[in-house]
Amino acid sequence: MFEQLGLIGCGLMGGSFALAMKRAGLVKRVVGYSKSPSTTERARQMGVIDVEAPSALLAVSGADIVLLAVPVAATEATFKAIRHLVTANMLVMDVGSTKRDVVDAARKVLRDHVGSFVPAHPIAGKEVSGVDHADADLYHGKQVILTPIEKTQTVQLQKAQALWEALGCHVQQMAPEQHDAAFAAVSHLPHLLAFALVHAIVSQPQGKEILSLGGPGFKDFTRIAASDPKMWRDVLLSNRHELVEQAKMFQRSLANMLTLAEEGNGEKLEEMIALASSTRSHWRMGQKAK
Amino acid sequence: MFEQLGLIGCGLMGGSFALAMKRAGLVKRVVGYSKSPSTTERARQMGVIDVEAPSALLAVSGADIVLLAVPVAATEATFKAIRHLVTANMLVMDVGSTKRDVVDAARKVLRDHVGSFVPAHPIAGKEVSGVDHADADLYHGKQVILTPIEKTQTVQLQKAQALWEALGCHVQQMAPEQHDAAFAAVSHLPHLLAFALVHAIVSQPQGKEILSLGGPGFKDFTRIAASDPKMWRDVLLSNRHELVEQAKMFQRSLANMLTLAEEGNGEKLEEMIALASSTRSHWRMGQKAK
Repeated sequence: MFEQLGLIGCGLMGGSFALAMKRAGLVKRVVGYSKSPSTTERARQMGVIDVEAPSALLAVSGADIVLLAVPVAATEATFKAIRHLVTANMLVMDVGSTKRDVVDAARKVLRDHVGSFVPAHPIAGKEVSGVDHADADLYHGKQVILTPIEKTQTVQLQKAQALWEALGCHVQQMAPEQHDAAFAAVSHLPHLLAFALVHAIVSQPQGKEILSLGGPGFKDFTRIAASDPKMWRDVLLSNRHELVEQAKMFQRSLANMLTLAEEGNGEKLEEMIALASSTRSHWRMGQKAK
Repeated sequence: MFEQLGLIGCGLMGGSFALAMKRAGLVKRVVGYSKSPSTTERARQMGVIDVEAPSALLAVSGADIVLLAVPVAATEATFKAIRHLVTANMLVMDVGSTKRDVVDAARKVLRDHVGSFVPAHPIAGKEVSGVDHADADLYHGKQVILTPIEKTQTVQLQKAQALWEALGCHVQQMAPEQHDAAFAAVSHLPHLLAFALVHAIVSQPQGKEILSLGGPGFKDFTRIAASDPKMWRDVLLSNRHELVEQAKMFQRSLANMLTLAEEGNGEKLEEMIALASSTRSHWRMGQKAK
């Protein structure tokens, strides 16, 4: 049980966290700050936060738990804004989709208090953003990856693990590098592919007519293409090295399949499709690898 | 109202059509044939068909409406099997995802009776196949594309249009070539990309561990990767020329975005993402282009 949550960023991710913490009875009071005053005000009106803070620093003041729910590119500046009030007894977390850059920023800015920081990535989201879409159930049943470093305090790591589990999440730990490589494959590259597909279609002279014919498969495949451009620009830039590595492997598989189709090599093409189809048919979200 | 439906192929698409026609009171009797006798038997046990036919030809005998719901690659052989019983008063349709090859097969095999054939592509499906998944609601609210040719009888085309509308579908007509180009973009290429992504991930040494981290975005993006390998092999082969054209445009958009990410050009990268995001945010399934 925490006394006071300092919430920096009252959008979809931060707002949903505050709502879930309150509903679970895990926090008494939420003090929130958002870059846009209208967001902070809206969050208070909705009951997502109890008190509006005029700055990130003041949101941290008096908190025993702090959540940074800002675009990954704003992480370092946010750490700088709050560093003077971060203490050894405080649990500080983020919710960023990339972890190496966040860990680097924490090391560089928080220095002696980097042990209070537990890097976190809840595998949850929506293709819409903003506090209006905040949802106390957003994290329930989802996976949360914690990527502690050598200086992370065990006590804060345990608090973080217990907290996410109390919100109904499945928690696992891995190194920041391992996290970024895996998420380049299962999240960042799929977003890039969905963006690229919609971009390629709408750029054609008949693009709008073509798009109007998309069915249920197109709908699901491109859902993530509606994601927030600034947020995803930052994620793709931040994790570009792993992204490019994963993209190369994807491009090889794609080029092979296209060549087989052009050559009319149905047998080999079917083999490649069958491997993908059988893999995906047996896949279940949140199911551990065997 | 039809007297007797001759259903060739009692799988997901054919079975769902029979169930929908029966529920709507549009047909009195369904005579079904599937390549696999166990499928035909199962279809009869489920009430999808009323009578099992021992051959495609006998399924057509006495029918006033015939539906071919077979893999596109089997269309020509199926036309050959039934040609001697196709009459000028019969409405013959298919449900294939490609139309040029189907139209070519109809011209070549049905000859004088090609006017009875109305090529149809209902934009509906599931990532699972087989009669056990047949669903009377599969087509409801979906788009159906009819691609008549110059010899198509107007009377059959009108019957086809009225029938699909009675099943709750939005019907539009276009040329087979236009259909195939558009569906390469919104259906065949997305399937290929989903297959290629899952193939590329599972082929990595840590593939299974990586896949276990996929969240809701990965789930939706790759849903179509679980599709039937033989069916999609045939679709990709059949429409390979349009597919390759669309793939080239996609590969250009993807390569541009990767280069911008590698160069750290956030501004241009965000522009490309924003075009995709705004396009997809405003897109609604089945909504006509403006």
